[in-house]
Amino acid sequence: MIRVAIIGANGYTGFELMKLIENHPNMTLTAAVSRSLAGKKIAEIYPPLGFAYGDFPFTEADADKIAQVADVVFTALPHAASAQIGGELHDKGVKVIDLSADFRYNDIDLYEQTYGVTHPRKDLNAQAVYGLCEINRAQIRNASVIGNPGCYTTCSILPLHPLLRAGVVSDKGIIIDAASGITGAGRKADVAYNFCETDENFKAYGVTTHRHTTEIEEKLSFGSERISISFTPHLLPIKRGILATIYASLMPGVQAADIDAAYKVYAREPFAIALGEGNLPEIKWVAGSNVCAFGYKIDTKNGRIIIVSAIDNLIKGASGQAIQNCNLLFGRPEDEGLPRIGNYL
Amino acid sequence: MIRVAIIGANGYTGFELMKLIENHPNMTLTAAVSRSLAGKKIAEIYPPLGFAYGDFPFTEADADKIAQVADVVFTALPHAASAQIGGELHDKGVKVIDLSADFRYNDIDLYEQTYGVTHPRKDLNAQAVYGLCEINRAQIRNASVIGNPGCYTTCSILPLHPLLRAGVVSDKGIIIDAASGITGAGRKADVAYNFCETDENFKAYGVTTHRHTTEIEEKLSFGSERISISFTPHLLPIKRGILATIYASLMPGVQAADIDAAYKVYAREPFAIALGEGNLPEIKWVAGSNVCAFGYKIDTKNGRIIIVSAIDNLIKGASGQAIQNCNLLFGRPEDEGLPRIGNYL
Amino acid sequence: MIRVAIIGANGYTGFELMKLIENHPNMTLTAAVSRSLAGKKIAEIYPPLGFAYGDFPFTEADADKIAQVADVVFTALPHAASAQIGGELHDKGVKVIDLSADFRYNDIDLYEQTYGVTHPRKDLNAQAVYGLCEINRAQIRNASVIGNPGCYTTCSILPLHPLLRAGVVSDKGIIIDAASGITGAGRKADVAYNFCETDENFKAYGVTTHRHTTEIEEKLSFGSERISISFTPHLLPIKRGILATIYASLMPGVQAADIDAAYKVYAREPFAIALGEGNLPEIKWVAGSNVCAFGYKIDTKNGRIIIVSAIDNLIKGASGQAIQNCNLLFGRPEDEGLPRIGNYL
Amino acid sequence: MIRVAIIGANGYTGFELMKLIENHPNMTLTAAVSRSLAGKKIAEIYPPLGFAYGDFPFTEADADKIAQVADVVFTALPHAASAQIGGELHDKGVKVIDLSADFRYNDIDLYEQTYGVTHPRKDLNAQAVYGLCEINRAQIRNASVIGNPGCYTTCSILPLHPLLRAGVVSDKGIIIDAASGITGAGRKADVAYNFCETDENFKAYGVTTHRHTTEIEEKLSFGSERISISFTPHLLPIKRGILATIYASLMPGVQAADIDAAYKVYAREPFAIALGEGNLPEIKWVAGSNVCAFGYKIDTKNGRIIIVSAIDNLIKGASGQAIQNCNLLFGRPEDEGLPRIGNYL
Repeated sequence: MIRVAIIGANGYTGFELMKLIENHPNMTLTAAVSRSLAGKKIAEIYPPLGFAYGDFPFTEADADKIAQVADVVFTALPHAASAQIGGELHDKGVKVIDLSADFRYNDIDLYEQTYGVTHPRKDLNAQAVYGLCEINRAQIRNASVIGNPGCYTTCSILPLHPLLRAGVVSDKGIIIDAASGITGAGRKADVAYNFCETDENFKAYGVTTHRHTTEIEEKLSFGSERISISFTPHLLPIKRGILATIYASLMPGVQAADIDAAYKVYAREPFAIALGEGNLPEIKWVAGSNVCAFGYKIDTKNGRIIIVSAIDNLIKGASGQAIQNCNLLFGRPEDEGLPRIGNYL
Repeated sequence: MIRVAIIGANGYTGFELMKLIENHPNMTLTAAVSRSLAGKKIAEIYPPLGFAYGDFPFTEADADKIAQVADVVFTALPHAASAQIGGELHDKGVKVIDLSADFRYNDIDLYEQTYGVTHPRKDLNAQAVYGLCEINRAQIRNASVIGNPGCYTTCSILPLHPLLRAGVVSDKGIIIDAASGITGAGRKADVAYNFCETDENFKAYGVTTHRHTTEIEEKLSFGSERISISFTPHLLPIKRGILATIYASLMPGVQAADIDAAYKVYAREPFAIALGEGNLPEIKWVAGSNVCAFGYKIDTKNGRIIIVSAIDNLIKGASGQAIQNCNLLFGRPEDEGLPRIGNYL
Repeated sequence: MIRVAIIGANGYTGFELMKLIENHPNMTLTAAVSRSLAGKKIAEIYPPLGFAYGDFPFTEADADKIAQVADVVFTALPHAASAQIGGELHDKGVKVIDLSADFRYNDIDLYEQTYGVTHPRKDLNAQAVYGLCEINRAQIRNASVIGNPGCYTTCSILPLHPLLRAGVVSDKGIIIDAASGITGAGRKADVAYNFCETDENFKAYGVTTHRHTTEIEEKLSFGSERISISFTPHLLPIKRGILATIYASLMPGVQAADIDAAYKVYAREPFAIALGEGNLPEIKWVAGSNVCAFGYKIDTKNGRIIIVSAIDNLIKGASGQAIQNCNLLFGRPEDEGLPRIGNYL
Repeated sequence: MIRVAIIGANGYTGFELMKLIENHPNMTLTAAVSRSLAGKKIAEIYPPLGFAYGDFPFTEADADKIAQVADVVFTALPHAASAQIGGELHDKGVKVIDLSADFRYNDIDLYEQTYGVTHPRKDLNAQAVYGLCEINRAQIRNASVIGNPGCYTTCSILPLHPLLRAGVVSDKGIIIDAASGITGAGRKADVAYNFCETDENFKAYGVTTHRHTTEIEEKLSFGSERISISFTPHLLPIKRGILATIYASLMPGVQAADIDAAYKVYAREPFAIALGEGNLPEIKWVAGSNVCAFGYKIDTKNGRIIIVSAIDNLIKGASGQAIQNCNLLFGRPEDEGLPRIGNYL
């Protein structure tokens, strides 16, 4: 039984982690840390958790105590704070899967510039592995610190990576136009996320400035120079799910067969599903599951490929991917405890 | 491995059954029958099922073939048709869990009057057991035909049954004011259920005429006469979930402690959760789970108890309860493969 | 041109008032007071208002200045604060239409008990008129202070008043089971009203304790004793609209024709529409309009009438009714500037 | 009083026309034609219309009768059928505002190729004017047949037209990524548009094949060759509204001041509102109004402008624009009867 602690358990990714852990046959929750909620029961904030966890409490962050009861810790605090406490636990021998951006970047300058903070554990960042399982599986197995990828980035990188690797699309001029459910904004008291302000609405936000842009650019740069993309996120009046519509220029002569050939790398993946030409996923196909599904259309007239990619931002885009990383870290079957069939309804 | 067939697999309860069976460690789907969709893959109608089931097809209803591959059949056809094919399979030795109303009533006249049909298998109805697990557990274990309860009825009977049994509320003048998500209407092409006609809306329907009224009345009548209730359903702009607000007159002198005492019968139930006074469930606490949760308030000024009860209409109100019945029928742990923590988000 | 000031203009009723005033051919906004937003433009908070109002600002509460520019003031502050500033303006000769509960009650003790405050202007309350136009039209015309009715109360009183007046239903045992859109909670930063906490959800709240209960009881008591009702509000995942399902016992021998006869009082009302037996309104029929529509079913088996009544909580339940009162106060056609056809879509 | 007939009144654009006409001080509805609903009252299908229109019926298409009672007809039938009946009425002296695509194209071959039909009235198409009021105002005033623009096209053309005219953006490589509410699909019985299939969902559709593409291309081509754009529509879980996110390459040296200068052409427009750099509209700002609002961001790193444009697809994208055209045709103030402040809530 893998003993799991969560730091920053009060948010929506915390809820989803606790739900996934409860359903996992080989994981058990040993600590749910939340400074603001310490002393309350998790059932007071999330009543359905109480149906399974009973009186399990939120507790204070105490690295010594956590190190005694946990084999692995999921850290989900704000940037810099997450690396701080995660680093402390790592030093005490606990494996760390960090859901913030703190351990996602190879280029620490790019991280610091993007997030406007000084990285508190550059030493540790040097040995961290970017936890996109389908791409870094081998290194993840041997890692002790994992930077769990962002939600928009997972949804964007998985379909683009094989095409750029295979050289079938140009790395110039890529546009990612994406839309996310409101859980992506987290659990916070803010008029902007009230039902009355968001329902029956749709808007763009963070245009030209969203932080996931640099994460995507770093992970998709294979040459000597970093590529440059346009990334425009939007806010959907739904709870969960991301759909990314991606525009890239096809290299001369490339056809659907070449795209499909590039996607063969995912042929046996349970959670990265290439649907092929003309079969475009919808958010409801993946919400509630750990699946990233994507399809495409060739826009012959304009020499482009238009890819549509979908994930559940809380599962494959956060907590599910963290569990998937944890399975790899501890030698469990990679899909153990992870849902493949989403809610649909 | 329990081999399972579904007849009438194309609807939303069919989808939910297929999803639950895939997640069940001891059940396997051997046939998904749908006359209208025979020949298509289940993934064509419900793409996420394809992520797990691959090319599994819908097939025609062929009782002989089904009897060869199935230990149990879930029948989910329109009234009368369901008993017909279910009866045929029963005669061939297959256990039957029927999701229509065909095997729910003891009083066959009440059934025929309520549904406006002639019951095709009165013989079989005589041995059928009403599949409300928390109340009929012992008989279900030995049954070969089970009438799986209705959604509104499950949500209403579970909280009222112990109170009427204990005599702490009057069986006169009960009012059940309930609201359901739109999956309750099934998967059909009808302008009335279009997004634009239902979103941002709320309405009553079937006022004084809804068929579940007589099912509730029969199951809650312990004396010589059948009780009479007012039942008013409403349509919510949500996908899944039922909330019932129930008004009953307290017997003289009854207090919260007496109510709690009556609810002790559910103390060890995983799926019938009495939350106690002042703790009223919301639909999001149970949607996505097999839990029926209920709480209450004493309305001292008016001598009433006001109970609020919540279920997921597709799970505890249909497919989940069917799986729960199936677990009982085949000696499996009653909660095997059934979710206790709902979606919440 | 009626010169109008709003005090407490920042909330959703303030938005709706400003929208209605802009569309009214004989009203003009002269001040939009908000302590928290003073100095900002109304377009910063509500951009669409800017399309019509340009740079119109929120200002501080300054009774002298307001008295100079306004013939009438709509006060929409918290309880007690509203009567305070409204009273001050009244003393300076400005007519007052108060959207709080401060001037709604005849029985000042009942008000103070319900709202837990001391009424700051009992003198003024004595001359205030309850602004339910269809019922108090004559007195409203000559009033200088109007207590604009609550949203749930308008939706409940309009259909019940004629029936109790005519003695066709009993005043004992009435149950009002109602549901409101989330604008009813106002514009506030509170996790409980976030999209992710409310969408796909439905819950009861304020069970046995909601403040509108006593307002309804006072306005529907015609005999020497105050009647007692059960009122249970619920929260719908919609923006605007209230649907009330009302259960009352029929007096012996009463039939549909008697009910219809009682509703004849509304025959020429533009905004109180009795739809008759079996024609039950939906929220989408009235959202976006100033209409209260209601229909009913006779529940013969249980000797009850079940009434379904619908309004837009922000319009007929607040700002629209305030404009209707204002039209009466200033001798304008009662329906001037008020929408009769709602959004529907 | 302008006497107005609607042909194809049963759909959502028909509803919106009837609502706008009722609120218009100088228009009166004289016929609501619907083959499928003839004989029914409009209140049976759209109950709120009954609050204003009483027993007004749907009638059969009878050109002679309509010509006697109508000065203008709004035709909203399927392609080709609309031009047929519209043409007939035009021949009898009735002005025609057609909401189908039949009179939108200059290039009749492009129309026939796009819609896969033979145009039944090429003669009339030659004198038809494209009814985008902000751009073709002068010609509209003198027209007798108007092709009312499509919804996506209005939302796309208004912000792009001045920039292409001014030569500040390239006409090569434009990408329009847009999302629409479900009323855009019309009023039809189709499982795909059921609440349960669309709520909490988001999907792309018609990728590379949507018909509005060629309409946009024709209207934005100023040189000798037709430009080529990528247009990707998506389906939002909302009732009404379109948001288009538009990517175009800036010509060398172009800055925000140049963009703003180009948008000066709209300085006095009531319904085309350029919000300027960094001020991006949301759907809720315009839903319920006849406004098209747009803002932009300069993506310096990639040499692009990203424009966000919003309209209500049923109003400025269909029925409101038709009324605006009608106002121009009959010498009324262009904004008469048209809402500027949307629902917001």
